[in-house]
Amino acid sequence: MENQFLRWLLPQIKREHRLEVPPGDDAAVLRAPGGKRTVVTTDLLTEFIDFRFSSSKDDQEFPPTATAYQVGRKAIAVNLSDLAAMAATPEAVVVSVALPRQNGRTIADELFKGIIEELEAFNTTLAGGDTNAWDGPLVISVTAIGSVSPWDCWRRNTAEPGDLLVVTGPLGGSLLGRHLNVTPRCHEALAIASKFQVHAAIDISDGLAIDCSRLMSASQTGAIIDIESVPIHTDAVSLSELKCNSSLTPIQHALQDGEDFELLLAIPPDDAHAFVGGDPQKLVPQTTMQPRIVGAVTEKIELLGRTADGQTQPLEPKGFEHAFT
Amino acid sequence: MENQFLRWLLPQIKREHRLEVPPGDDAAVLRAPGGKRTVVTTDLLTEFIDFRFSSSKDDQEFPPTATAYQVGRKAIAVNLSDLAAMAATPEAVVVSVALPRQNGRTIADELFKGIIEELEAFNTTLAGGDTNAWDGPLVISVTAIGSVSPWDCWRRNTAEPGDLLVVTGPLGGSLLGRHLNVTPRCHEALAIASKFQVHAAIDISDGLAIDCSRLMSASQTGAIIDIESVPIHTDAVSLSELKCNSSLTPIQHALQDGEDFELLLAIPPDDAHAFVGGDPQKLVPQTTMQPRIVGAVTEKIELLGRTADGQTQPLEPKGFEHAFT
Repeated sequence: MENQFLRWLLPQIKREHRLEVPPGDDAAVLRAPGGKRTVVTTDLLTEFIDFRFSSSKDDQEFPPTATAYQVGRKAIAVNLSDLAAMAATPEAVVVSVALPRQNGRTIADELFKGIIEELEAFNTTLAGGDTNAWDGPLVISVTAIGSVSPWDCWRRNTAEPGDLLVVTGPLGGSLLGRHLNVTPRCHEALAIASKFQVHAAIDISDGLAIDCSRLMSASQTGAIIDIESVPIHTDAVSLSELKCNSSLTPIQHALQDGEDFELLLAIPPDDAHAFVGGDPQKLVPQTTMQPRIVGAVTEKIELLGRTADGQTQPLEPKGFEHAFT
Repeated sequence: MENQFLRWLLPQIKREHRLEVPPGDDAAVLRAPGGKRTVVTTDLLTEFIDFRFSSSKDDQEFPPTATAYQVGRKAIAVNLSDLAAMAATPEAVVVSVALPRQNGRTIADELFKGIIEELEAFNTTLAGGDTNAWDGPLVISVTAIGSVSPWDCWRRNTAEPGDLLVVTGPLGGSLLGRHLNVTPRCHEALAIASKFQVHAAIDISDGLAIDCSRLMSASQTGAIIDIESVPIHTDAVSLSELKCNSSLTPIQHALQDGEDFELLLAIPPDDAHAFVGGDPQKLVPQTTMQPRIVGAVTEKIELLGRTADGQTQPLEPKGFEHAFT
């Protein structure tokens, strides 16, 4: 029952100075950090689209199987990744779930273990939620709230021709498992923002090509991606060798696969070189970030791929998109 | 497709001074009103539990059929009702949806027509969202963000013995249609907060008895409800005559039915009498509010019902609760 579940859950939420009114009231009240803006983002995950439990009856290959604990961590991580893409500090989340009636309590317990662990890893608090049961599969919706100074916020629509495009790590093949072990680049974003000028940013959630096209479209600019410079994750190579998922090459996986949750940044050349040439560990201790320059922002509104021989051709903005009619 | 839908939706969202970064980026950025706190609440609605489309195949009586437009309005209204219960001013919402793949676009268009209309009625802005498609029924999750001065915020845990309990309107039978035409008491809450001392508040979403028990439990107090004083909605009488839903009497409907979305307020006696004795229309022009005193907060932690002859007996905290195992 809902009440019993909440009696299990609520004591696990630490008393937080940030929460003037903690969970359990009609709404939570956050103490706003002085002079900062409130940043808000939301992402919803559904069973069979974003994850699949091993007990699921269908035997499709994708999405791969996950535990409720992993789903909980991921649901938080993908929202924190959006805050990172704004250079915002995570403050709090609210979590709504639609639980299957059967086994819902077990799922909810595991789910919230993952949620609480991921929140603690990023010093973020659970500010509230809504627990529903129904005869359908698991749905989880998270809204994350962050804070940012008005002058520190990264946006999508402010890339400038001449900026270099930087990704924070190798791309592709996340379906082999990384998509369930997402590291949002929150610490990295704040450290980068404090040291370097970043004109625009987006997190790579649906694929480098499509997310780059979104960044460029918002900025009313174009981009050239140096295909040879795109860092290819070893998972992209492995997935290509498995020949599933329509037999893409490793670079195609790196360009089109979603759920890498690295950042794509438009940075003026001097700062881009300083950032990429520096030691990531000095910027953020123990970071797994590996920044690489992958291209440049151009005036002409088109997305191009450039091969090692200098030839360019249009780059299709492929990636994950929800299809409905 | 997701992109086409967003191209239809986004131009309908007015440029808003409150949104420093509008929808379309990784997250929205809200300009915080000076010195105020951020209030956040979330509610998720699912097809077959909270609403049913007339095309739904099953022929159950409940939940009654609704249009996607009504679902959109309701999803916003129930969240605004939680902000009203905190005496907070609505500022913005984010909306996540899981759309059925078939007919999803038509549903989304109708849904967001309702969402936008309801938001405009309460001077609230759409700050972002997440559009998903899947092979399941419609799920909609809304997170509402409001603002409140720290000293104006109503809470659940601050009712005091001796306070009178006031409801803002007649209760029961909302299933006959009012549950799809919810009027959140936002304007009323702000007006009441500006004129009268209110010690504690909750919105009646799951039923007077259960929501009163939540208010008392949070405040570590008890309450006596004067059964004869509880205003019974004409819908509660009609529903009782229909003899469906386990044949409750009108007063049982008034005590146990959910989705009235009136406020239950704990108010010191002088202010309670002044509020209830005054003209609601002078407080909020054109309000439908009809405040009534229904009982009192007591020191002893128990929920009692008192009949006209002065007899008291325990009042079961019945109401809607999500069941799962």
